[in-house]
Amino acid sequence: MRLVTLTTDFGDGDNFAGVMEGVVATRAPGARVVHLTRGLAPGDLAGAAFSLLTAVPYFPAGTVHVVVVDPGVGTARRPVAVRCRGWFAVGPDNGVLSWAVGSRPHRAVVLANPAHRLRPVSRTFHGRDVFAPAAAALARGLPLARLGPPAGALTRLPFPPVRRAGRGLRGACLLADRFGNVVTNLAERDCVARWGRRALVASAGGARFPVRDAYGEAGPGRPVAVFGSAGFLELSVRDGDAARTRRLRRGSPVRVEPA
Amino acid sequence: MRLVTLTTDFGDGDNFAGVMEGVVATRAPGARVVHLTRGLAPGDLAGAAFSLLTAVPYFPAGTVHVVVVDPGVGTARRPVAVRCRGWFAVGPDNGVLSWAVGSRPHRAVVLANPAHRLRPVSRTFHGRDVFAPAAAALARGLPLARLGPPAGALTRLPFPPVRRAGRGLRGACLLADRFGNVVTNLAERDCVARWGRRALVASAGGARFPVRDAYGEAGPGRPVAVFGSAGFLELSVRDGDAARTRRLRRGSPVRVEPA
Amino acid sequence: MRLVTLTTDFGDGDNFAGVMEGVVATRAPGARVVHLTRGLAPGDLAGAAFSLLTAVPYFPAGTVHVVVVDPGVGTARRPVAVRCRGWFAVGPDNGVLSWAVGSRPHRAVVLANPAHRLRPVSRTFHGRDVFAPAAAALARGLPLARLGPPAGALTRLPFPPVRRAGRGLRGACLLADRFGNVVTNLAERDCVARWGRRALVASAGGARFPVRDAYGEAGPGRPVAVFGSAGFLELSVRDGDAARTRRLRRGSPVRVEPA
Repeated sequence: MRLVTLTTDFGDGDNFAGVMEGVVATRAPGARVVHLTRGLAPGDLAGAAFSLLTAVPYFPAGTVHVVVVDPGVGTARRPVAVRCRGWFAVGPDNGVLSWAVGSRPHRAVVLANPAHRLRPVSRTFHGRDVFAPAAAALARGLPLARLGPPAGALTRLPFPPVRRAGRGLRGACLLADRFGNVVTNLAERDCVARWGRRALVASAGGARFPVRDAYGEAGPGRPVAVFGSAGFLELSVRDGDAARTRRLRRGSPVRVEPA
Repeated sequence: MRLVTLTTDFGDGDNFAGVMEGVVATRAPGARVVHLTRGLAPGDLAGAAFSLLTAVPYFPAGTVHVVVVDPGVGTARRPVAVRCRGWFAVGPDNGVLSWAVGSRPHRAVVLANPAHRLRPVSRTFHGRDVFAPAAAALARGLPLARLGPPAGALTRLPFPPVRRAGRGLRGACLLADRFGNVVTNLAERDCVARWGRRALVASAGGARFPVRDAYGEAGPGRPVAVFGSAGFLELSVRDGDAARTRRLRRGSPVRVEPA
Repeated sequence: MRLVTLTTDFGDGDNFAGVMEGVVATRAPGARVVHLTRGLAPGDLAGAAFSLLTAVPYFPAGTVHVVVVDPGVGTARRPVAVRCRGWFAVGPDNGVLSWAVGSRPHRAVVLANPAHRLRPVSRTFHGRDVFAPAAAALARGLPLARLGPPAGALTRLPFPPVRRAGRGLRGACLLADRFGNVVTNLAERDCVARWGRRALVASAGGARFPVRDAYGEAGPGRPVAVFGSAGFLELSVRDGDAARTRRLRRGSPVRVEPA
C-alpha cells in the first residue's frame, strides 16, 4: 500500500489537512499519509512547486504526492493527476506540479470521473472533495487512466533563468526558510561544471557571501553562502536572518563568481 | 483497528499533541492517529466545536475523535466520552463536543475508571492522562460503559441563532480561516429552501458581498460570498482578507437576501 | 516495528520534517513516525532537551527519538545515537539529548557508518541525510554498534541549579508555553520532600503566585502556580499570559516557600 503526501497552504488553525487525511483513510484504509507541510504562505505557487521538487526523491516508489495551493478553486483551472516514473502527483493544474514533473516522461489526466470525487463537490475545498479521493484511488492501485481523460500539456510555472554575467552567473532568490536562509536558483552542479572546486563568492542585497562548506564556518553575524540540501546556493547570516537583514525576497537578483 | 483524531489548542511549539499520540500508541498499538489541528486559538471552544462538526462526516465508521480545548482543566468540569452512531468523541464536557453531537442519539459517560487513566493524573494535562487513554481504550474496542458511569445531559455550547429580518435572514460570523475568509452560520440548505437558486447578496461590516459560485468570480480586491465547504455562507475578499478589511469577528452580524 | 519520533525547529513552512518521514518510510517501511513538534524556536537547545525529557516516558519500549536542533550542522559537532534502557535517541551531540539521558546507563555511538547515511550527505540537512537513516536502521532492529564507533562521553547541556534560599528554594524559569504559562526547574518531588503538603507560594517577576491544584482556582487575571504535567512548578495568570505580563524568560529567577 502506498504513501500519500500532502502539501498545502491551509495552516494549522483549521482542520482542512486533517480532513483530507480522513478522506484518504476512508477510501484507502491501508494508505499512510505524510503531512509534508500545511504551512506554505497562502497562494504561494512557487513555494509549493519547490516543496514538491525537493521532496519527491526522498519517498518510496509509488508515493502519491498531493499539492493543494489552489487560489483558483471553483474556476476553470483543471484538477489533474500525473504519473511519472515511480511516483504520482495530484493537484490543480496551476503550475504547482510542474517543477517536480519538469521534462520527465509523464502521463496526465483531468480528474473528471465522478466515482472518484465526493458528492457533492464543494465550491471551495477541492482538496477534500476532488484531490484526496483521487489520491486514495491511486494509493489503492487504480490505473491513472480511470480517473479521467488525458490532460494534454500541463501548465508550467516559470523557473527563473540563470544567465552568464561577466565571469559569473546571475540568478534570483527563490524563497527564504524560517531561519532566514535564502534559497537561490543557482545550482551546485552548474557551478561545479564551470569552476570545479574553486573558491566562490555570492553577492546579493549589497552584501558579499563567501561560499563555504557549512554555515558554522562564518563568524557570528557574518554573511556566508552554502550549497544547500536541495542542491542550490543558499545565502545566510550566521545566527542571523539573511532575508530580513539584506531585504532579499523572491526574485531579488543574486550573483556568483570566483572569489 | 480504529482511527483516533486529535483537535487541540496546544500549538506546535510544544510536544503536547505528540505526547498524546505516544500514549495512544502505547495503549492501542494498532490505532492510527490523525492530527486534525493543533492550532486552534487558546481556549477557543467554538472553534473546537466547529472543527469537530466539520470533520466527523469525513472519517471512517468507528473513528474516535478527541478534542482538548480545556481552559477548566483540573476544576470540576467533567471529562466525558460519547458514542454516536458510527463514531466516538472524547473530551471535556465544556461544549466542545456539542455541535457535532447535536440532537443525534448518543450515549455519554464520565471518564471515571482509573484503569483507563494514567497514574498519577496531572493537574494540567488531561489530554495525556485522561483523554488519550480513554481514546485508546475505545480504539481497542472497549465498550463505552466500561469507561465510567452515565453522564446524563452534556453541556451545550450555544450556536448563534438565525432570524428572519425583512425579506432576508440575519445571522452571525462564526470564525475566520487563515485566508481571511469569514464563515457565517447561514446554512446553504436554509437559503435554498427559502429562495431556491435566486441570486443572493450578503451584507456585513458595511460591505455587500454578492453570492457567487467561486471566489475567483470576483475581481481582485472585490468582496464575494460563497457557500463554503461546511455548508455555510462564507464572506471573502478576492486576494484579500475579509476578516481584517471589514473588521469581522465572531458574533459580527451578517445578513443575506435576494439580490 | 518501532516508533520514530521527530523533534525539530524546522517550522511548518517548509517540508523538512515531512521529508525526514519520507526517508524513514523508504528505509524502514513498517516504522511509524510521530511528529512530536516541528515548532521549537530556531536553535533552542534547551527547548529541545526539555521536549525530549518530557516525551520519553509516554512512548512504547523501543521507540527511536530523533531530535534535530542543530545550529552547528556541517561543523565538527558529532552526530550520535544513544541506547538507553527501553529507548533510543538520535541527534547532534550538542546537548539536546542530555536531559533525557541524564545519568541513566546508556551506550552512545558516532554515526559514521556510510551504509546508514544518504549519499551524498548535504552540508545543511543532516536530519534528512544522517539522522533519519540512522533512526530507520534502529527502527528495523539494527544493533546500535553497527552505526559507528563508541562515542564516549556526550555533551551535556547544563540544567539550571536549584538552591536553598532562606526558608525557601530558588530556581529559574525554563520556558513558556503558548498559553503564557512559565515552566520552572522547581520539581514537585523536591518541594513535597521538604514541605509535605503545606501551602506554598512562588515569587517571580515582582508578583506572588499562590500554589494551587488547578489554574481554574485563581480569579480571572490573577496569578497562580501549579505543579504541572512535567512535574515542575508552573507560573500562570488565569486567562492571561504570565510570561509576557511578568516579563519572565528563560533564566528569570523564581522562588518558592511556605505561604
